[in-house]
Amino acid sequence: MKIIGFDPGTIKMGYGVIEIQQSLIELVDFGVLKAKPTLHLSKRLYLIYEQLMNVIDTHNPSELAVEHPFVDKNVRSAIAIGQAQSLVFLASGKKDIPCESYSPREVKINITGYGNSSKIQVENSVKMQLQVKEGLSFDSADAIAVALTHAQQIKMNKILG
Amino acid sequence: MKIIGFDPGTIKMGYGVIEIQQSLIELVDFGVLKAKPTLHLSKRLYLIYEQLMNVIDTHNPSELAVEHPFVDKNVRSAIAIGQAQSLVFLASGKKDIPCESYSPREVKINITGYGNSSKIQVENSVKMQLQVKEGLSFDSADAIAVALTHAQQIKMNKILG
Repeated sequence: MKIIGFDPGTIKMGYGVIEIQQSLIELVDFGVLKAKPTLHLSKRLYLIYEQLMNVIDTHNPSELAVEHPFVDKNVRSAIAIGQAQSLVFLASGKKDIPCESYSPREVKINITGYGNSSKIQVENSVKMQLQVKEGLSFDSADAIAVALTHAQQIKMNKILG
Repeated sequence: MKIIGFDPGTIKMGYGVIEIQQSLIELVDFGVLKAKPTLHLSKRLYLIYEQLMNVIDTHNPSELAVEHPFVDKNVRSAIAIGQAQSLVFLASGKKDIPCESYSPREVKINITGYGNSSKIQVENSVKMQLQVKEGLSFDSADAIAVALTHAQQIKMNKILG
């Protein structure tokens, strides 16, 4: 089973592709989709959506997962994250691939065991779990963390029922 | 010049198409794009996006306009409106049609002269300006109000320079 996780943003959107075979989880691909910040929001969303569809077409995942905006912080940035998240949901609807969303807190608890952990702690934990030595940015580490959280959720759902 | 205005939502998205010829503004079309509330957000966004692209293809507008989420109210609903608004921006980027966004307050001031006017006041004012007698819902009246606000903005920009 292949899962792609996304860390949504309207200038940079991290992605991480993992493959689960029995109890083994392998990191298949990761990176950051980008649009120049000087471009109008319309163009940025379009460029990021095109790259996102390319990543999905390349990896043909069976599930998608995306981080949800934090509702208790800056409202303007929550709206921007919602706009970017919308692209992942749209791709999910178009391609008929299930998509779940997780709050930053759920992802942090799942990855580091602690809901207020820092970006560096998340990155280090992702590196350790997947035995990656270098090359991860915060954006792609967050996206892989979302994919790992979804993998864990699927495992829990299987155990529970 | 044809403008399509949108009142964004993830279950119902109002739209209104106006045509400006010199100082005359004509209402060309209006309606509500819909997705069943029982569907997953992914499917709803996809279905609304497909209908939205159809409306754009049918009318071939030169400008788009969309209402911006109110940042000072409920954060969750602001995120949902941002997700729906994102579809209009994405269509704008894909079709290379300029898109502007306006806050509910800007739209109300433009249409009724008063930033805290009610939905009924906006609807009545739209009906009066465009000589529409019936058939408008709140969603389509709001969308037409956004298109009229954009028309007014274009006019002001021409006067100013």
